[in-house]
Amino acid sequence: MEVSLEIIGQKLKERQNILILTHQNPDGDTLGSGMALYYALKQMGKRACVLCSDPFPQKFGYLFTKYQQEEIHPDLVVSVDVADTKLLGKVSGCYADQIEICIDHHISNRIEAPMRYIDAKAAATCEIIYQLIQVLGETITKEIANCLYTGIITDTGCFKFSNTTPRTHQITAALMELQCDFESINRKLFDTKTRGQIEVERTVLDSMEFYQENRIALVVVPQKLVQETKIDSADLDGIASIPRQIEGVEVGITLKERPEGGYKASVRTCLYADASAICGKLGGGGHVRAAGCAINRPLEEAKQLILDAAVQALAQ
Amino acid sequence: MEVSLEIIGQKLKERQNILILTHQNPDGDTLGSGMALYYALKQMGKRACVLCSDPFPQKFGYLFTKYQQEEIHPDLVVSVDVADTKLLGKVSGCYADQIEICIDHHISNRIEAPMRYIDAKAAATCEIIYQLIQVLGETITKEIANCLYTGIITDTGCFKFSNTTPRTHQITAALMELQCDFESINRKLFDTKTRGQIEVERTVLDSMEFYQENRIALVVVPQKLVQETKIDSADLDGIASIPRQIEGVEVGITLKERPEGGYKASVRTCLYADASAICGKLGGGGHVRAAGCAINRPLEEAKQLILDAAVQALAQ
Repeated sequence: MEVSLEIIGQKLKERQNILILTHQNPDGDTLGSGMALYYALKQMGKRACVLCSDPFPQKFGYLFTKYQQEEIHPDLVVSVDVADTKLLGKVSGCYADQIEICIDHHISNRIEAPMRYIDAKAAATCEIIYQLIQVLGETITKEIANCLYTGIITDTGCFKFSNTTPRTHQITAALMELQCDFESINRKLFDTKTRGQIEVERTVLDSMEFYQENRIALVVVPQKLVQETKIDSADLDGIASIPRQIEGVEVGITLKERPEGGYKASVRTCLYADASAICGKLGGGGHVRAAGCAINRPLEEAKQLILDAAVQALAQ
Repeated sequence: MEVSLEIIGQKLKERQNILILTHQNPDGDTLGSGMALYYALKQMGKRACVLCSDPFPQKFGYLFTKYQQEEIHPDLVVSVDVADTKLLGKVSGCYADQIEICIDHHISNRIEAPMRYIDAKAAATCEIIYQLIQVLGETITKEIANCLYTGIITDTGCFKFSNTTPRTHQITAALMELQCDFESINRKLFDTKTRGQIEVERTVLDSMEFYQENRIALVVVPQKLVQETKIDSADLDGIASIPRQIEGVEVGITLKERPEGGYKASVRTCLYADASAICGKLGGGGHVRAAGCAINRPLEEAKQLILDAAVQALAQ
């Protein structure tokens, strides 16, 4: 049921042992949301835990400086930035049926929970968590500001994506007043590349293929390259934005070979093609400009499937 | 003399034919400031003209959609974002002695004018122009919002650089309310690369060399490559930031071969090395984190000279 942040705040105040679930392949928004809520709950004297089925990526380590892992027997389970219980992954998935509060900004959210707060106009779930912490009457400390800032810049691509709103900048202005470490966070997340990343980028640029009069660009990231360069999956995220950056390209496709075989496709679009429609055809989903899906086929078949879907989207 | 924006506003109201001077090698902030002020003055029924010694770069073309070139006999000359009359270049330089109003955010501003408004805390001169247009009581139209947004994002690197403040985000929130075309502007300025740029980046990544336990990264951009890819100099700017982005690199050096022979060195540093000291040793200069110099030597000698200077800077 859709409820207000006030009702969610009330529930959080009532309970004592709160488990926060984030999505697998965690990004800055799910981790920033989870950790900001965690710090606020700790201020309120609660026991709390942030759970993720995958390890926290190293580059987001600064979010966890004051995190203290504790075993809890949850009397309340909250999911943040998780659009579907399928995205919880194995570990967090065990709690899928126990989610009482679901906080998210994906319009496609499919989690059934007694208390849902889905604001698809929020550029990041962190925008909602910012409002929730205010409703709770808790201080936004510098740690919390760093978490919220992280979710906002990762989900808006530094305020560049179409989901950015006046409210995004207003909230960010407030986080800047709180002295969040915006400069070092930006350097870490956007202006630092490992040599592995450089190596992968070089290979990706070398292997880029163009289709449909250069309106589609496709790159493949083989598992062998990922292993040789020891690049971690969070560092691979930036790769997906490369094909779309090329002048004239409307649909950028990245096919990442998975360790278990098959491919993960990331689709990015520029102006008119619907990325979520392209991935939806293959059982995935996402946003209009950024979406993804899994394709359990050998390379050439995977390519053909995603290209066919992209060509259809271009025709519409 | 330092004056308030109210006094500057009064002067603009009194005069009828206003010439706006921008700096040479124009960037988004000087052009955004000049054009925003131009549109506001046109709303006030003035005759106005924006002058630049260099051609307006094509990528900023959207700033000029409603610009109407007219010959004026100026009764008021205003400079925007120009730190020194030397930076006006040849054409605008003719008016150096006639500047009555100087609006800028460079702390090093050396222009002597009867009315100066220098706010070094403004991330961009466009922040000041935003305030000035409000003082003038003029509507901030979508065209004006696009100009101001452009200056802000180019001078802050999309809100990433240390000069960004809460006010920067507050003003941007207001510009977003006015429906500025933030998405297409960002795509144009930051997320679009020509195939020539991609080609140059690929070659640069292929040829990168590391020294001093990877604390120095050096790339060479041969003139042959520039000519083959037909890349223009504004599009080459981004290349200089690549070597510094690599994890662990403190000094990033780009050696660009000049059409007339010899090399232009661009030096970028991360945390502690002084780029202006490195370039100063070879007759150049700049800021602590970004500097440049010319080296009239064959490649191997040029490399050795700049590397020696960088090694010295690392030792300090």
